[in-house]
Amino acid sequence: MRDHPETTFTHSASTLGRRSFIQRLTGIGAAACIASQKNLAAKDTITMQTIANPRLFTFIGGNSGTWQVTARKTVIGEPLPTVKRLDIVIGEVKELPEDALWKLAGVTSHERYVTRAEKDQLAAKQVTIGRPEATHAAMIPIRKNSKWWAMTQDERRAIFEESSHHIKIGMKYLPAIARRLHHCRDLAEPQPFDFITLFDYTKADANAFEDMVAELRTTEEWKYVERETDLRMVRESK
Amino acid sequence: MRDHPETTFTHSASTLGRRSFIQRLTGIGAAACIASQKNLAAKDTITMQTIANPRLFTFIGGNSGTWQVTARKTVIGEPLPTVKRLDIVIGEVKELPEDALWKLAGVTSHERYVTRAEKDQLAAKQVTIGRPEATHAAMIPIRKNSKWWAMTQDERRAIFEESSHHIKIGMKYLPAIARRLHHCRDLAEPQPFDFITLFDYTKADANAFEDMVAELRTTEEWKYVERETDLRMVRESK
Repeated sequence: MRDHPETTFTHSASTLGRRSFIQRLTGIGAAACIASQKNLAAKDTITMQTIANPRLFTFIGGNSGTWQVTARKTVIGEPLPTVKRLDIVIGEVKELPEDALWKLAGVTSHERYVTRAEKDQLAAKQVTIGRPEATHAAMIPIRKNSKWWAMTQDERRAIFEESSHHIKIGMKYLPAIARRLHHCRDLAEPQPFDFITLFDYTKADANAFEDMVAELRTTEEWKYVERETDLRMVRESK
Repeated sequence: MRDHPETTFTHSASTLGRRSFIQRLTGIGAAACIASQKNLAAKDTITMQTIANPRLFTFIGGNSGTWQVTARKTVIGEPLPTVKRLDIVIGEVKELPEDALWKLAGVTSHERYVTRAEKDQLAAKQVTIGRPEATHAAMIPIRKNSKWWAMTQDERRAIFEESSHHIKIGMKYLPAIARRLHHCRDLAEPQPFDFITLFDYTKADANAFEDMVAELRTTEEWKYVERETDLRMVRESK
């Protein structure tokens, strides 16, 4: 894949002094600064390209990738074009690969709704995406409407959990179902969805997964969902 | 500025059918998809480049821009290189302009901590950045430590408001001081700060602004700040 992001750190004639200047300048976010000779009034040339963000994932729909798409359901709003396979890569993919129809990106982040008590309960039961036996997966991109985003934190939390029991419902299916949430809404490049949730599970837990998503979609929270697509996928066991 | 982002929508030989396909595909986030002829198996070529994100702001430190930098203070952590002027532009700036030393980007978003009661109080008093008489400004980029981000929403809220009175302190200075918060932490490209807050005010309110930031910096919340720089700026009145 030509455009797979790489951790690139090129400096053609740098000195330690210059490098530490850049490091001071950019701190952990070295990629934020592209410094060239003229900017630094230095004799050496320093080029710093993007360092891949390990929290960013790109989902590429097309004809290649680990996951074979077995079903696609448009729950609400505009559909995503049908694809045969899905590839999930770490970092930003600037250009769509040749055999792909679309790409979606999202970044994992700190939790926005769970309380400490809930987080501790979740931590005791949850598992990480990528277990060898988890040969089944679902990718569910969602966009919520402007009414949702105009609400305050306490209003959103009340709908999310006190009314819709989002966390409580999910908890029932742990540790069978692994989940990874990616945020899309605040990326620099406007995205068609606010979130992408990726789930994986064994073949034996596929029915349980159906029960979980069906239950969530009946909640008050889902009244604020204005676009949702659901891809089901399988892969060879590892 | 060569690399200033533009709203670009190029289609060399598109049909309405093809355009509506793309619109369906990408919904509000047309920029998320770069579709080319081969991907769509169509005879016409469609190139869609990034549509500027109106919630994204880029802050460029260098020798040009509306704001003349009058002071720079490193509150904690590594400093930002000293610059003479600051330019604030809407949208993404891919490359650093020739006369610039650094750029920082952030996106405005929904509120993360205010309750409905607080939001209503704020809405009744707050003003928007850019009043003609607001010739003074401050740009304050901040990064919080990993301990902050490992906390849950209820823990962060308790420190933010119940203990540190962040909203209550800010409220005292409304409508004199306008504020715009930009989030950097979840951009695709890793950033050196988590937030950039921009404030503007009249010359007469400059002392009040000093009181406000001094008070905030004594709070428990500020114990979690591991990098903070404070730029003060002036501009000609409009």
